[in-house]
Amino acid sequence: MYTVYGMKASGNCYKIELLLEQLGLSYRWIEVNSAAGETRNAEFLAMNANGKVPLLQLPTGEFLAESNAMLFYLAEGSDLLPRDRLERARALQWMFFEQYSHEPYIAVARFIAGWLPADHPRQQELPRLRERGYAALEVMEKHLDSREYLVDSAYGVADIALFAYTHTATAGGFDLQRFPNIVAWLQRVRATPRFVAQTVVTQSH
Amino acid sequence: MYTVYGMKASGNCYKIELLLEQLGLSYRWIEVNSAAGETRNAEFLAMNANGKVPLLQLPTGEFLAESNAMLFYLAEGSDLLPRDRLERARALQWMFFEQYSHEPYIAVARFIAGWLPADHPRQQELPRLRERGYAALEVMEKHLDSREYLVDSAYGVADIALFAYTHTATAGGFDLQRFPNIVAWLQRVRATPRFVAQTVVTQSH
Repeated sequence: MYTVYGMKASGNCYKIELLLEQLGLSYRWIEVNSAAGETRNAEFLAMNANGKVPLLQLPTGEFLAESNAMLFYLAEGSDLLPRDRLERARALQWMFFEQYSHEPYIAVARFIAGWLPADHPRQQELPRLRERGYAALEVMEKHLDSREYLVDSAYGVADIALFAYTHTATAGGFDLQRFPNIVAWLQRVRATPRFVAQTVVTQSH
Repeated sequence: MYTVYGMKASGNCYKIELLLEQLGLSYRWIEVNSAAGETRNAEFLAMNANGKVPLLQLPTGEFLAESNAMLFYLAEGSDLLPRDRLERARALQWMFFEQYSHEPYIAVARFIAGWLPADHPRQQELPRLRERGYAALEVMEKHLDSREYLVDSAYGVADIALFAYTHTATAGGFDLQRFPNIVAWLQRVRATPRFVAQTVVTQSH
């Protein structure tokens, strides 16, 4: 059985929950409070030297870090990872886009707007984060103009990776109504077999 | 033949040059001056809506973006991408680490310290970038304590991805002499077959 060390409120962790549920794999979930420093103690750092969740423990006991590497690993051999060489690379293209051009703005804006007090100095980062986050949403909107899913017409790991923080973007102050293709895509993702919603999406200060 | 749209001074672009040379694949290189806005004009955005180099054009004419997705695509079937499922996921783990926890600090510190004037306001970002960059180097140093390369004992795409900006980290103000395992690993990478050094590593203001 797989073990996931994760935090339910984290979009990166929710990716793994969603994929495991859709693949019908059994797993246990160990909740780790990253905000309280639980990923930085010696016990956790021995499992993942980079001190981050999610972290996947395989049935063999080995660990795998980085949410999108975990998606790729778990989905291999299933319909959620393309078998074609170029399509598989395109799934990776969107997953790298997510971690470099999307998550650092959209997830961080959500964290600052939703988790930190209104007078916290990091609130001043929001305008820049929103500018960059909107640029990422524009790229997705344009791409989805002619497609049902991110990689050709099949739902898969790239959609899961980008659904994770896009579906809560409004919590970071993003107006998704400007992006009808994204809104329609979010609905298509929610309608896929065995979809599960993220159960914890906000946290009080 | 492959076509690479890239900028020689960019580590993300150098990754592709290094891999193509080591695989012995023929390609043409089209130099694009990202700093002069050449990735943001209509012609370039029609090829890559995210407006970034490197960008790979396949012999079929199709485009693939994101440097690490390109590494994965090009290396498939070669010894530079592990064939084992878990090792392949570990290569991806290190490539996602590179884009999320390493490049945004080490590459950006190099850009600010090496490209921007000494009185530019972004110089004030350097202390935070160095703190985060050093944290990434610590993770690598610890991992390389018992390994010759990042993924078990075989050189491959994960090493290429992390070599790209680690080898120029000193230009961003990082003292690599603190990390003997990294220094030894950089030398091992330089000694791999068909290795080519990055030809442009600095730029005048």
